[in-house]
Amino acid sequence: MTERSVFFVSDGTGITAETFGNSILNQFPVKMRHVRRPFIDSLEKADAVVSEINEVAEREGRRPVVFITLVEPQIRARVTGPGVNGMVLDMFRTFVEPLEDELGVKSNHRVGRFNDASQSQEYNDRIEAINFSLAHDDGQSSRNLDLADVILVGVSRCGKTPTSLYLAMQHGVKAANYPLIPEDFERGKLPSMLAPHRKKCFGLTIDPTRLAQIRNERRPGSRYAALENCRYEVNEAETMMRREGIQWLSSTHKSIEEIATTILRDIRPDRLIY
Amino acid sequence: MTERSVFFVSDGTGITAETFGNSILNQFPVKMRHVRRPFIDSLEKADAVVSEINEVAEREGRRPVVFITLVEPQIRARVTGPGVNGMVLDMFRTFVEPLEDELGVKSNHRVGRFNDASQSQEYNDRIEAINFSLAHDDGQSSRNLDLADVILVGVSRCGKTPTSLYLAMQHGVKAANYPLIPEDFERGKLPSMLAPHRKKCFGLTIDPTRLAQIRNERRPGSRYAALENCRYEVNEAETMMRREGIQWLSSTHKSIEEIATTILRDIRPDRLIY
Repeated sequence: MTERSVFFVSDGTGITAETFGNSILNQFPVKMRHVRRPFIDSLEKADAVVSEINEVAEREGRRPVVFITLVEPQIRARVTGPGVNGMVLDMFRTFVEPLEDELGVKSNHRVGRFNDASQSQEYNDRIEAINFSLAHDDGQSSRNLDLADVILVGVSRCGKTPTSLYLAMQHGVKAANYPLIPEDFERGKLPSMLAPHRKKCFGLTIDPTRLAQIRNERRPGSRYAALENCRYEVNEAETMMRREGIQWLSSTHKSIEEIATTILRDIRPDRLIY
Repeated sequence: MTERSVFFVSDGTGITAETFGNSILNQFPVKMRHVRRPFIDSLEKADAVVSEINEVAEREGRRPVVFITLVEPQIRARVTGPGVNGMVLDMFRTFVEPLEDELGVKSNHRVGRFNDASQSQEYNDRIEAINFSLAHDDGQSSRNLDLADVILVGVSRCGKTPTSLYLAMQHGVKAANYPLIPEDFERGKLPSMLAPHRKKCFGLTIDPTRLAQIRNERRPGSRYAALENCRYEVNEAETMMRREGIQWLSSTHKSIEEIATTILRDIRPDRLIY
């Protein structure tokens, strides 16, 4: 297949351009070379990107696809101008102008970089949530567990840690996580630290075969990783969650984004606008 | 101000719809109530969302703004149909159709949920990177440091941990982090563990006043948090990074997204398509 490139050009980090562009491109059975050009916040930088786009178009014999999120009109004009040999998809303009009509206000052309994130409450809440989730990873601490928005429970290696961190990082959710271990199953009770917080618990389960595979990567040939043991633990954990009335879902075929979205939809933490 | 709502309706997690929608809405001086409706993957669910949109329109006296990422044509038709009292911004359609012409292939209408992320190499790399970054947080381990894509260095509480986790989670980058502590400054040398990996080191620095503020939240009134000590540590760390030829940036006014984007742009890890 001949090579073809896609550019993501932004005056900020370009994360929006790339997230959105990728979800569009995922609809197509083509693989493109990705070129990220963040922080394009001056006419000089815009001109440099345009030169690069034109060079790539010539080299590859096809104009690249160019997703842009550029707020400042003059900079945008350079990258969307007639001298640009690319298929430019202007994500802001397409939606901002109809919204100005709808909302009856002008947009304020706010460029990402002028926005000092470190001063915003929402940002600081996210950082605090990350610190909370790290401090409460894998049942490390019962301190301040009352401040948790959610406590993920489940057997070792079912996906609790990355999900907790994702909830914190993306949504500012204080997500603790707590392993269910064979001792809990023998006692037939939730770990005592969790008892006062049962309503905030959310379970993760996983297909035992997949679990054995994951555990074998860590500790090959161990009893811990043996399929029979994984079956036992998963079965016990599900029995316990059912008995304790803890809602759960299976992580087997889900990404952390999907797990997190489902949890948020179901628990709707009061603290957060949802 | 009268209330007005924005819906994010998706057949998947809705993360794309919301990320993109928010960056559009951030251009406007209005605050809207957010309603997320993920996993809308049947006609019944689509009808329920439409009813909700229409109720909200009636209650608030203004039609809501509705960002959609719906791939399946029938479901999309329900939410964009004439009976819907909302301003629907159809993010996929607007760009998918022109791209079909440009690329000369039909899109495959792939819905997020049919996509088993847990099977993809890219996803598994991300999870592995998260595990790596956690295991190498705060200089915990020198094991496999040769596998790191980047090693963040800097004084305690300058932003290394959340940045490492973000790099791993968002970009699949194996980001270790290593603190520079007063003992290192006395010795006048990089920690010995880092010496063989100097080329992969990237420094973070921070304004001493901001650092003192952050440290005071953790350990109020301590010598560790004192402004004078923060000034000393930051100055020593910058001197060391300059002497060792380690590139660095200041985290003071930057979000972790901005820091991560800058690091990626500058280090361009070979392992990753960039």
